[in-house]
Parts: sequence; structure tokens; C-alpha cells
Amino acid sequence: MPTINRQFLLQARPVGLCAPGDLQLVETPVPEVQDGQALARVKFLSIDPTMRVWMMDADSYLPKIPLGNVMRCFGLAEILESRNPQFKAGDKVIGLVGMQEYAIISASDSRGFQKIPPVPFISDSAFLGTLGITGLTAYFGMTDIGKPEKGETLVVSAAAGATGSIAGQIGKILGCTVVGIAGTDEKCQWLTEELGFDAAINYKHADWKEKLAAATPKGVDINFENVGGEIMNAVMDRMNLHGRIVLCGLISGYTKNSPALGHFSPIIVKRLRVQGFLVTDYLAKFTEAATQLGKWKVFGKIKDRETIVEGFEKAPEAINMLFTGANTGKLMVKVAD
Amino acid sequence: MPTINRQFLLQARPVGLCAPGDLQLVETPVPEVQDGQALARVKFLSIDPTMRVWMMDADSYLPKIPLGNVMRCFGLAEILESRNPQFKAGDKVIGLVGMQEYAIISASDSRGFQKIPPVPFISDSAFLGTLGITGLTAYFGMTDIGKPEKGETLVVSAAAGATGSIAGQIGKILGCTVVGIAGTDEKCQWLTEELGFDAAINYKHADWKEKLAAATPKGVDINFENVGGEIMNAVMDRMNLHGRIVLCGLISGYTKNSPALGHFSPIIVKRLRVQGFLVTDYLAKFTEAATQLGKWKVFGKIKDRETIVEGFEKAPEAINMLFTGANTGKLMVKVAD
Repeated sequence: MPTINRQFLLQARPVGLCAPGDLQLVETPVPEVQDGQALARVKFLSIDPTMRVWMMDADSYLPKIPLGNVMRCFGLAEILESRNPQFKAGDKVIGLVGMQEYAIISASDSRGFQKIPPVPFISDSAFLGTLGITGLTAYFGMTDIGKPEKGETLVVSAAAGATGSIAGQIGKILGCTVVGIAGTDEKCQWLTEELGFDAAINYKHADWKEKLAAATPKGVDINFENVGGEIMNAVMDRMNLHGRIVLCGLISGYTKNSPALGHFSPIIVKRLRVQGFLVTDYLAKFTEAATQLGKWKVFGKIKDRETIVEGFEKAPEAINMLFTGANTGKLMVKVAD
Repeated sequence: MPTINRQFLLQARPVGLCAPGDLQLVETPVPEVQDGQALARVKFLSIDPTMRVWMMDADSYLPKIPLGNVMRCFGLAEILESRNPQFKAGDKVIGLVGMQEYAIISASDSRGFQKIPPVPFISDSAFLGTLGITGLTAYFGMTDIGKPEKGETLVVSAAAGATGSIAGQIGKILGCTVVGIAGTDEKCQWLTEELGFDAAINYKHADWKEKLAAATPKGVDINFENVGGEIMNAVMDRMNLHGRIVLCGLISGYTKNSPALGHFSPIIVKRLRVQGFLVTDYLAKFTEAATQLGKWKVFGKIKDRETIVEGFEKAPEAINMLFTGANTGKLMVKVAD
């Protein structure tokens, strides 16, 4: 059994990229396995953008990592010794192993670990990628949130990343025209030539927004968004009416020196749905709705107030009243009896 | 028949609030009614926040108003003379009458005008308010977008406005705990004492965010948002997991000196749905999804690439690779064979 464990501790919260010393390498003794515990040797660490969020001085969907603790990290490990009936030596498991060489899996942590099955043609590491968290993220984001219809146009940002590359291919399987956005020509070539994307755009080229427009002649119905910021805004400019933005990540903000990742961050952390609408889309149901509103009004279920400005010439001032808080209820200008 | 029409023309695009001269009052002859047209006398002008958006130098869900044109305005008018079989003298109609005393309704515009029925107990002006655009906006925003479940908590901003006051009351009818945000104590009193809101908060008091927290002890499930900016952010802080933001208006931005109303504006204009998600919400379906992904991978429907960094001690650098674009596909650190 091993006696020395190497671990990376979070010693300082990074400003921008991780600097030397933010994560400090230490050697600690491998603890003896207690009842209910298992000892595992880490084989692969999964490196994910969300780790940079965990390092910040703010809770997200998980609590922030306290300084001095082992860096939180997802990974694949092999059980060396087990005093937990759930595991036996030789089992391969995935879970939050931490950024270390050996992990003690306590009884209470054990539910967060899953054994990986031996599957023909599938390497162990695929359970951290395509069949793991990033692949599953792409899968549920596309099938449960984006829900494309055949013939729709999908744009994926960070398209050559672990999640984006799978999301785009699922888009193809589901019948979309798929356009990827990535940061090198080599990545773009991989997307179109190997993965079957219909187009791929290198956002580091000055004319990338024109190219995005040219690649999406029918606009964009679904945006699988991993990046945020300028890239998200450019895609939003191309969105069609009633489009959907699958908000998966905002990597462009994660190295900004701010715990706030912009307005969109709580939407991910709390899995919110933000939906814009205009009443004109419901024209066909206006009569039905007005009838209901009228009934509620007549029967006192709904009360209202009107602020009526007398005199046509006061109409411009009336507009300003909306923005100075001068009206209560519906604001109107009475022009004639 | 009248001979002189008074009109407000958009002569300059406002910066901030409307300044004198932005809308210029002119007198023009009332045109003779041609075949297919009707002449109507405007009785009420509807004054709505969206008018300030129409005045900007940018198209929204409607084209911007060209300088020198009659200001676009919704209103209620009575037909004086008609050479269109759709209308007869005495009919009362609502539609985009323009900011003027007399409106010619052309044959092509006529579809945008609706006759109001004579309904007992309902005043004409209610067809611009509770039974009109603002009431309908509240109705569809609540019933089709917010879709509250009984017992959920709804927060409405600009709650004493024409739309917000109805949205909150519909929330009560549908079984929500309803909290309104408004800008005067008098408005707040109206909301709680007359309209039956459970609480109302004056955002001009320094401690309003604490009061919002106290009024929403179980968090916020639905935000009917009319304001944007700081108010929306404060409500977002109180949102529960899987909450819904019904994005109806962003009035806090409409008088800002910018055609862009922030990231959220296109969401309204294009009626987009932005939905955040985390893969962990789908835990119960992981095996099913991984099986599908595995099949796609084995049969070549999905291809992937892994970027594997060798050596445990390189893990911190590996995190940075995500943000410098150094990886393609899934990034991992190989710790042991």
C-alpha cells in the first residue's frame, strides 16, 4: 500500500489565470482505511472550466473551496482497498476524487461515486468525457433544454471543447444545421471535416461575425452557449424569434477578476428559465383573455386604477411620467370626450 | 367634419427623458376620406413604456419611427366617417392611432384596429388598460410563461404600473404569495390594502433588499420583471432553483442614453427563452443517456478527442489550458496507468 499522497491544496484564489502558488503541492501520509471507507488510486483527473468557478471567493451551485483544502476535482480512480461493501479492490470509479494521487472515499461520500462498467470499445477515460459529465451535459442540454426540430439552425460556442463538440454532433443527429465557434483554424477544421459540422468559425478572425451571418442565412434557432460575453452577444444578434439559448457555461467570464460572472451567471447556478414575450404573439387569444379579465374585473377579483392626463398637448409630458414614477395603474391621455 | 388635425411629430430622438421639441406639435389639414379609409377621432391615447423604445435610433420588435413622422401611439378612437365596410360612424376602435387628434385608418391598417364591444360595467378606457394591451400582457405573461403552481412566490416589479398591478392580482387568483416592488409608499399601500398583494416594497428605501428577503422567506419562484437593472438583480438573488423570469419589460434602461438595453433586451424583442441547467439535475437518467452516447460513439455517430496531460504535477497548468484555448475535446490529467 502507498504511504505518501501528493495533493494540490488551494492556497490562494486566482486572479485571472491560476498563478504558481495558488495551488500548492504538498505530500501527506496516506491515511489508514477505516470501517466504511475505501482507498482509491487516482488514474485521471478531469479538468473542467467549472473548477475555476469553484476557486472563487463565492459559493456557486457548490460551496466555494475553503483555502487550505484539497482542490476539488472530478476524476477516475481504481479501488486499492475497501472496507465498504459498495466497492472492492479493482473497481474503477468516477467522482469527486480531489486533486490528489490517492483518495479516501468515506461512507458518506460513497454515494457520489459510481462504478464504471467494462464496455467493449470504450476506454476508461471516455467515462470522464463523452460518456461522462461533459457528454451528459451536451446530451441533456440538447435533448431536454434545446429540443431542436429538424431543419433548425444550431450554433455552439466553445465548439471544440468537450461539451460543445458533443452538443454539435447531437445537433446533427437530431437534424439541425450546425455551426460551431472555436478559437483556432485547426479546431474549426476538425469540427467540419471530422465531426460533420456544417460550418465552423474562428472567432479570432476579424470578420468572424460576418462569417457567422453567412453561415446562418436562416438565422439561429438554438444557441448552445458555453462562452458568454461578446460571443454570446454576436450569436444573440442572429437569433430568430422564439429562439432558445441553452445556457451551459460562461467561460469567457471565469478568469475575470470578479466573483460576479455577469447577469447570466445566476441563470446557470439556479437553473433559471428567462423567457421574453410580447403580447402580440397571442393575438388569436385576445378575445378569450379579455373576456376572462373583464369577468374578474366586474366581479372584483381584479381592481385597477387609471391615471388620466387631460389634454392632447400634454402627451409628451405623459411619456415622461412613466419614467419618473408619476403614474399608478394605466396611464392615458384624454384627448376628447 | 373637422378640418384641422393636431399631431405630435418625432423631430429628435430623446436623450434620457423626452425634452421639449423632441415631439413637435403641428397643425395639419384633416385629409378627405378616400375609398377603403375611415376617419376617426382619438379619444384616449395609451401611454406605454415601449413608446420610449420606439423613439430610439434602433429597430426593436417594430421598426424605429422615422424622424418627422407622427409619433406612434396606441389609442382608442371613434369612427366619424367611413368608406370601409369594416367600420361605421360611431364605432369605437382601438389600435395604433398615432399621437394625433384625428386618424385616417387606411384599408391596409384596418386589420390592426379592433372594435370594442359595449360591455356593461366596463368603461371604454378599460380597453386600453385591464382589458387591453397591458392587461393582456399580464394575463399571457402569467398564464403562458410564468405558469405558477399554487403556493409559489411571485415577485412583480413596477407592480403599481398598468401591467404589474394586473400580473400580481392574477398571481393571487392562481394561488401565489405575491410581493410587489414599487417606488412610493402610497403605491405600496394600494398594492397591499386594495389589490391584495401579500407584501409591497418601496425600492427607494435604503433597506428594501432586506425587506424583499423578509417578504420572500421561501425564496422567489417567479419574477414578473418589468424593470431590469438593479431591481432585477436583487430579485434574481432571491430566486429559487428552477425559477422562472417572465421578462416583460426593462423600463430602467429605456431612458439610458444607449440603443442597447443590455443583454436582456434581445430576449424580449425576439421572445427568446434562455435556460440555465446543470447536468447534476439529471442524475436519475445518467445511465440511460450514457448508454445512448456510448452507442453513438461505438457506431461512429459521435467522434471525440481527448487532450491528455501526463503527470499529476501539471494539473494546475492544465486548468489554465481551458482558458487559453490549448485543448481540443476533453481535457484530462493522467495521474497513473
